[in-house]
Amino acid sequence: MKNLFKLFLLLLFLQNTAFAQEESATTIKKIYDNAITTHQAYHQLGLLCEKAPGRLIGTPNSFIAVDLMKKYLEDLGADTVFLQAFSSPAWICHSASATMNVNGKEIPLKMDALGPSASTPKKGVNAEIIEVMSLDEVRVLGREKIEGKIVFYNRSMNPTYYNTFRAYSEAVDQRTAGPGVAKEFGAIASITRSVNNNLDDFPHTGTFHAEGDKIPAIAVSTNDAEKLSAALKINPHLKVNIKVDAEDISTNTYNLIADLKGSEKPDEYIVVGGHLDAWHNTQGAHDDGVGCLQSTEVLRMFKDLGLQNKRSIRVILFMDEELYQSGGKAYADFTRENKIKNYFALESDAGGFTPRFFTIGASKEIVSKIQEYQYLLQPYGLEKIIAGGGGVDIGPLKKLGVPLAGYRSDWQRYFDMHHSANDKFENVNFREMQLGSAAMASLIYLIDQFDLAE
Amino acid sequence: MKNLFKLFLLLLFLQNTAFAQEESATTIKKIYDNAITTHQAYHQLGLLCEKAPGRLIGTPNSFIAVDLMKKYLEDLGADTVFLQAFSSPAWICHSASATMNVNGKEIPLKMDALGPSASTPKKGVNAEIIEVMSLDEVRVLGREKIEGKIVFYNRSMNPTYYNTFRAYSEAVDQRTAGPGVAKEFGAIASITRSVNNNLDDFPHTGTFHAEGDKIPAIAVSTNDAEKLSAALKINPHLKVNIKVDAEDISTNTYNLIADLKGSEKPDEYIVVGGHLDAWHNTQGAHDDGVGCLQSTEVLRMFKDLGLQNKRSIRVILFMDEELYQSGGKAYADFTRENKIKNYFALESDAGGFTPRFFTIGASKEIVSKIQEYQYLLQPYGLEKIIAGGGGVDIGPLKKLGVPLAGYRSDWQRYFDMHHSANDKFENVNFREMQLGSAAMASLIYLIDQFDLAE
Repeated sequence: MKNLFKLFLLLLFLQNTAFAQEESATTIKKIYDNAITTHQAYHQLGLLCEKAPGRLIGTPNSFIAVDLMKKYLEDLGADTVFLQAFSSPAWICHSASATMNVNGKEIPLKMDALGPSASTPKKGVNAEIIEVMSLDEVRVLGREKIEGKIVFYNRSMNPTYYNTFRAYSEAVDQRTAGPGVAKEFGAIASITRSVNNNLDDFPHTGTFHAEGDKIPAIAVSTNDAEKLSAALKINPHLKVNIKVDAEDISTNTYNLIADLKGSEKPDEYIVVGGHLDAWHNTQGAHDDGVGCLQSTEVLRMFKDLGLQNKRSIRVILFMDEELYQSGGKAYADFTRENKIKNYFALESDAGGFTPRFFTIGASKEIVSKIQEYQYLLQPYGLEKIIAGGGGVDIGPLKKLGVPLAGYRSDWQRYFDMHHSANDKFENVNFREMQLGSAAMASLIYLIDQFDLAE
Repeated sequence: MKNLFKLFLLLLFLQNTAFAQEESATTIKKIYDNAITTHQAYHQLGLLCEKAPGRLIGTPNSFIAVDLMKKYLEDLGADTVFLQAFSSPAWICHSASATMNVNGKEIPLKMDALGPSASTPKKGVNAEIIEVMSLDEVRVLGREKIEGKIVFYNRSMNPTYYNTFRAYSEAVDQRTAGPGVAKEFGAIASITRSVNNNLDDFPHTGTFHAEGDKIPAIAVSTNDAEKLSAALKINPHLKVNIKVDAEDISTNTYNLIADLKGSEKPDEYIVVGGHLDAWHNTQGAHDDGVGCLQSTEVLRMFKDLGLQNKRSIRVILFMDEELYQSGGKAYADFTRENKIKNYFALESDAGGFTPRFFTIGASKEIVSKIQEYQYLLQPYGLEKIIAGGGGVDIGPLKKLGVPLAGYRSDWQRYFDMHHSANDKFENVNFREMQLGSAAMASLIYLIDQFDLAE
């Protein structure tokens, strides 16, 4: 009799499990169907790119972007929309140009300032350049060879990696640490080859570490890096003139936050976000307009489809991922001060191409739990869920013990566009973007429904 | 002692297997490294698109394309390059236009002729249109409602399918069979909504079955299909004028074939190909310039890397996949007549986007055998190998018992471009294309090395 009862309980459990699985599959199908037939977010991304390109922290366009998206989130019917204020240093680039002197002629280079580059005198800085392939090469050459010169970092991304983010991370020290190391040995400016896989004419900007004094620092397009290198081989005393007009400022700014109240645990928050800021030279379509709109899509679909989130869903459009990463830190501080429980956090900041996978930054147990549900996303091309990081904006929540996740789309095209004028709305494909929105909403649905982050 | 010997043999076998696996992984890495650092095929694709767009069978550009690619294959150092001649009906489109009459004004429609549309009189055909959503709707309406009219097929692709090829195959009967069914019930012309997921201004052409007499048949862009439908709701007697100037011809043409001789079984051929022809309105970059150049890349890499193919590798650039599929049939006939043993055949004709999978059209045993090697392609994003078809050009080899395979890339963007002016070289990404070339070369390497097609 006892065994019979046990069997009964087991059957009941199996039936419930099967039912829950079927119900989840149906809900996820609803999410995808809705995402792929609703153009609202795509149009809003177009508007954001058009009305507020170059929306770096502290710039007029960053405030326009906040207004535009605040209104959008209110119109979507979020329960609460508010600005989480913080102050931060910022940097405004007014203009930048550079030329190389070939046979007495000043040949313009396709370039842009890195942030936060120092300004030059009005007539620019003018000096011989010295080409290097690494930070270590500068250290080996030492002050004797470097002082008074412009250091030119010209190592390419490694094209043979399938994972372009790996190639990026191996090349990008020339940009992030290059100007600092050049300055340490007496260089008066630095030039970095754009961190981009292809040979093209787009300069790709980005941030560098600039503690204390700093030097003018620029990036040149990969094509012009090749030209510069070739000209230097002909004339080892080749001079370059760099002009940068930029300004360090302080600003009061905001993370934009919108909540959709949970039905059972409204005080626990599932965060989903991207960053609203974008470099001065770009519309910031893939980086990270897409991530912002995919995040607002999660809220929109939970509301429109009546998905009954148990916990509150919190969309955060972070300010300043690009320059000083101050928005992510500010939200973590806000969380600590107000004893907010963030149950889980998901970030989309790796492009809006066709979906490939999620990374989970949490305990092995939580990673395994979430992986068990991957089969529900497989029919939509989301091929795996693996251990990994979340993202720059939600990163500071890790110390608070929040399980993190990152949405990852196909990465072959990302660095053609990243931090350049080529990162524009017309390079975002509606279906690719919305399959991502659906993948993100589905993951959050599963996390919330089956308590997967504990 | 006997058991000890058995154990020895087992260990030897395991060691050999491990060695073979390691060697394969190393070779495959070499293939990918070579593909992703060699721009020759990409530049040649640019040239093909620029010099020979609209290279439909029988057109001057189709012969230019053959010449261009023959020279290219000779320069690559193929052992044999030859033209396999055949004759076929063909069709030349000289011009096509259409207008809808709104309040006495002729409003131009974004359209193109389907192949092989009949010509209209010079002043065009002018008639009321009748909008339908399916072939069956025409059959239900019957001759009474259809006779003398222009049938307008306006069913969309189903956007909710993740698999866009499935959505295509469910919508495309309006194009392939639509004109025939319309004619059967007395229509004087037909209009098909472009088979495309998005609302845009590109007309997408394609073929229709035209046995015996045929009517003028066109496609309109999805945006103009919407406009036409809206105008028809306002004026149920809306008239459209269609002008097509086209010509049915006979042509002597060629499949272009290049062989790289095998070291052990030179009389067994591993076929790899795409089709060289492209519709009159397009550069045919993804469809199927990419497939052609990915196929030539297989030969180039086997040669340049000294991969020692046991069997001969045969690149075939088929003529006429688009209109009458005569090139594929002609090669199968050639094979039969000359008693050629095609050991295996691989086709790339589904776009040159980021690699996703291979389909294998062969016995379960062969499919399983090949699947065992998928793990070697996984690190490069080739996520699975599944049972499925090969492709239109190699399809006729199935009857001869040849195991077939199809290369499949990510399909979200394909139908934005397919058979339209939007299918242009600038929409092909170098890395995406070359990851495909490498995947194809790797598959062929494995098939040949481990005798997987038997």
